[in-house]
Amino acid sequence: MAKEVNNRDENYSLWYNNLVTKADLAENAAVRGCMIIKPYGYAIWEKMQADMDRRFKETGHVNAYFPLFIPKSFLSREAEHVAGFAKECAVVTHHRLMANPNGSGVVVDPNARLEEELVVRPTSETIIWSAYKDWIKSYRDLPILCNQWANVVRWEMRTRLFLRTTEFLWQEGHTAHATKEEAIEETRRMVEVYASFARETMALPVIVGQKSANERFAGALDTLCIEAIMQDGKALQCGTSHFLGQNFAKAFDVKFADKEGGLEYVWATSWGVSTRMMGALVMAHGDDRGLVLPPKLAPIQVIMVPIYKGEEELAKVLEQMQPMRKVLEEKGISTKIDDRDHLRSGFKFAEWELKGVPVRIAIGPRDMEQGTAEVARRDTLEKRVVLQTELFEYIPRLLTEIQKNIYNKALAFREANTYRVDSYHEFKERIEEGGFFLCHWDGTAETEEQIKNETKATIRVIPFDHDGETGACMVTGKPSSQRVIFARAY
Amino acid sequence: MAKEVNNRDENYSLWYNNLVTKADLAENAAVRGCMIIKPYGYAIWEKMQADMDRRFKETGHVNAYFPLFIPKSFLSREAEHVAGFAKECAVVTHHRLMANPNGSGVVVDPNARLEEELVVRPTSETIIWSAYKDWIKSYRDLPILCNQWANVVRWEMRTRLFLRTTEFLWQEGHTAHATKEEAIEETRRMVEVYASFARETMALPVIVGQKSANERFAGALDTLCIEAIMQDGKALQCGTSHFLGQNFAKAFDVKFADKEGGLEYVWATSWGVSTRMMGALVMAHGDDRGLVLPPKLAPIQVIMVPIYKGEEELAKVLEQMQPMRKVLEEKGISTKIDDRDHLRSGFKFAEWELKGVPVRIAIGPRDMEQGTAEVARRDTLEKRVVLQTELFEYIPRLLTEIQKNIYNKALAFREANTYRVDSYHEFKERIEEGGFFLCHWDGTAETEEQIKNETKATIRVIPFDHDGETGACMVTGKPSSQRVIFARAY
Repeated sequence: MAKEVNNRDENYSLWYNNLVTKADLAENAAVRGCMIIKPYGYAIWEKMQADMDRRFKETGHVNAYFPLFIPKSFLSREAEHVAGFAKECAVVTHHRLMANPNGSGVVVDPNARLEEELVVRPTSETIIWSAYKDWIKSYRDLPILCNQWANVVRWEMRTRLFLRTTEFLWQEGHTAHATKEEAIEETRRMVEVYASFARETMALPVIVGQKSANERFAGALDTLCIEAIMQDGKALQCGTSHFLGQNFAKAFDVKFADKEGGLEYVWATSWGVSTRMMGALVMAHGDDRGLVLPPKLAPIQVIMVPIYKGEEELAKVLEQMQPMRKVLEEKGISTKIDDRDHLRSGFKFAEWELKGVPVRIAIGPRDMEQGTAEVARRDTLEKRVVLQTELFEYIPRLLTEIQKNIYNKALAFREANTYRVDSYHEFKERIEEGGFFLCHWDGTAETEEQIKNETKATIRVIPFDHDGETGACMVTGKPSSQRVIFARAY
Repeated sequence: MAKEVNNRDENYSLWYNNLVTKADLAENAAVRGCMIIKPYGYAIWEKMQADMDRRFKETGHVNAYFPLFIPKSFLSREAEHVAGFAKECAVVTHHRLMANPNGSGVVVDPNARLEEELVVRPTSETIIWSAYKDWIKSYRDLPILCNQWANVVRWEMRTRLFLRTTEFLWQEGHTAHATKEEAIEETRRMVEVYASFARETMALPVIVGQKSANERFAGALDTLCIEAIMQDGKALQCGTSHFLGQNFAKAFDVKFADKEGGLEYVWATSWGVSTRMMGALVMAHGDDRGLVLPPKLAPIQVIMVPIYKGEEELAKVLEQMQPMRKVLEEKGISTKIDDRDHLRSGFKFAEWELKGVPVRIAIGPRDMEQGTAEVARRDTLEKRVVLQTELFEYIPRLLTEIQKNIYNKALAFREANTYRVDSYHEFKERIEEGGFFLCHWDGTAETEEQIKNETKATIRVIPFDHDGETGACMVTGKPSSQRVIFARAY
């Protein structure tokens, strides 16, 4: 099975598509651009959700649910928002089908046309702020710290599983505040929550910072983001947090009575991450044998494979494995025994490597005699013979070690593929090979546009964390206050 | 606040609507027929979800996610399904908006018409079985035990919060089996999972049984259900589990190679419960003061209200409350201190009663002196003074007691409102006052139809649990093998 996964170096894009489908994460649906998230993929997404949801709640947020449909007119209330967002979307125009008069199947009932068309939400700022108008009267109603887990639809022309699909799953936080400072603080807090999640749980080193004006969310005054490098040297935006100012409050006329009795427009933020994160997980850590899952997100953390000849030997090995599995489960380690009798163990090894299970324990007749087990780790492919008596102490330590190692490996990759470049000529040559380029930029949209047109690279992030070095823009020579990261992106 | 909730006896329907909105569970959205589930309501739904999801996983199911959109042609593949289901639904016909040529807002781009219209899923049998066709080749691929948590849309003409909304949230299980027996067993297993959830977690006594042919799901060979009585004597269907036979396998040509090498159509089930359960929760347990939440579903299980005059006293009471809250939280009891300084304690009492918080602890200066606390339970409205030293042992016991009492109260209500009636004349009179009617029925759709037309009552459930008494149909006098439950229903 593993053989069918193409080599990363040969064709990264094909490697990714094959891996996502062969590891049973997702597949294309019968509906153009939509995906089916298969149980194994969904189990990873559930772990991501649970981890993020906990972090959201720890920072004071609550979940709610707002409608799927948005009246068409809502979208045009915030001018920039509609310009940047609302165009490519699914439009509901009718509410009934009827039997086809010609007798075959169903057709749209022409008498069931909606008075106002509904748009399937591409994002929910407009429908949520239309509700906040009723929720917010006074400063005592603030802040509102709502999140929703939902599906959204953006009619994409070119789609790829997880990375860009017409329908995708995400969470979107929408907060309302009495002051500008508080909203800015929230915007920053949430991008840091995303960064911690990415680093600690996904083992994904991300750079936190600001988007340039060109790359901002439509309707935002400021967009913060976390950005990661993939193994082909391209950047992937993993999450964004927007300071929306008073734009949506003004569009939906949401004012509050402040402590002094004055009426003020409310300040807003919104922030979201999506099933795109699944793509980042695959592309950042996977190798030519398949997925490499960080233990914190692995639906199965330990796979146990019996090595045997004949039914009798199988029964004996399983007898020994079952209590071991139980002890590991009690330690909170999700463990599965692969007791399928119609498959060779070599096939099983390859399958679980493809699926990225962090640790494999194999036990055969010789291990039974010697009280040992063969423990293989997915991240380094190293094998080690361990005494069974030491296993329950060894495995939890190993999982922690793997989680750390996957992060460090990804970090080392990013560092090896991040370049400080000062000459635009050099930039144009080297961008072809991929990587993050730390360059000086004059801060203008024009220069960024020129670079994009000439190299397909954009400013991915203006990092918060920088050395304070000033310099001259690599294109125009005009002053630059810090280096920013250019890259080609997904 | 509580005063605004109308009396149940006066106008049950208005009482329900007021309660749902005033207790901050949900509200009508700007989009016709759609609702916003507010944070307090959503927190209850999250607890329902977590509890059911655990039960599904314990019975071997996994979650997945299938597309929101279904190609129109899929719906007509299964003839009965389309006849019963697919008519009133949201139809997507276009995929783009454009700036209005007249300059104001946006309009649908006439050039972005879809080749085939898409329907927003009213239920997912068709899209899922079109996927199962690729997933299932051999008996080794079976069973498939998938569930999804999703939103669905049915274009309802008359909507009510939670009970009937155009968009609602639900879970839908879709399983595939090699044998008829296994599928029937699964259908039965899942209706029992629903029953256990309703009884143990929602404190809702439900009757488990079969639907009559008239009330079956469109495309099913058999529909099992759990049915509960509301306080106005009407029935509410809380969950259904369908044995679909080979109907969808045939419609989507899903066959598997059996052990003997033959090709057979796959057997199917589907089962679902929705946010309608929220309506049942409100209507089964609520009273004239507001919600009465079973502790297992209460987002806040204990509310602590300080009684004080002036800032100094407040500080002292809070100093005592905070460590108490911590101990309760450590015991897994979700506890909140209402330290809002601008509201009187009477107002707070009423608000938390309205929101159905199971236990209230009030502590004032006199309690401080005497080392006591006033503990009030929401279900009986009883108050008791408890020594603070006994509180940590008392509260967990009390919560268990409340959970049990709410169930018993609802069960007693059902028993008091369930009648064995043998005369159709008597039935027609008494059905006006509501209740469950255990009657003999001749098993024909015609008789059921007649009863429905003449009394608006339908067969809610043919109970599994019955005394084996045979008899004569109350309408036709023809033989009946068991009593069935008639009622008017939501």
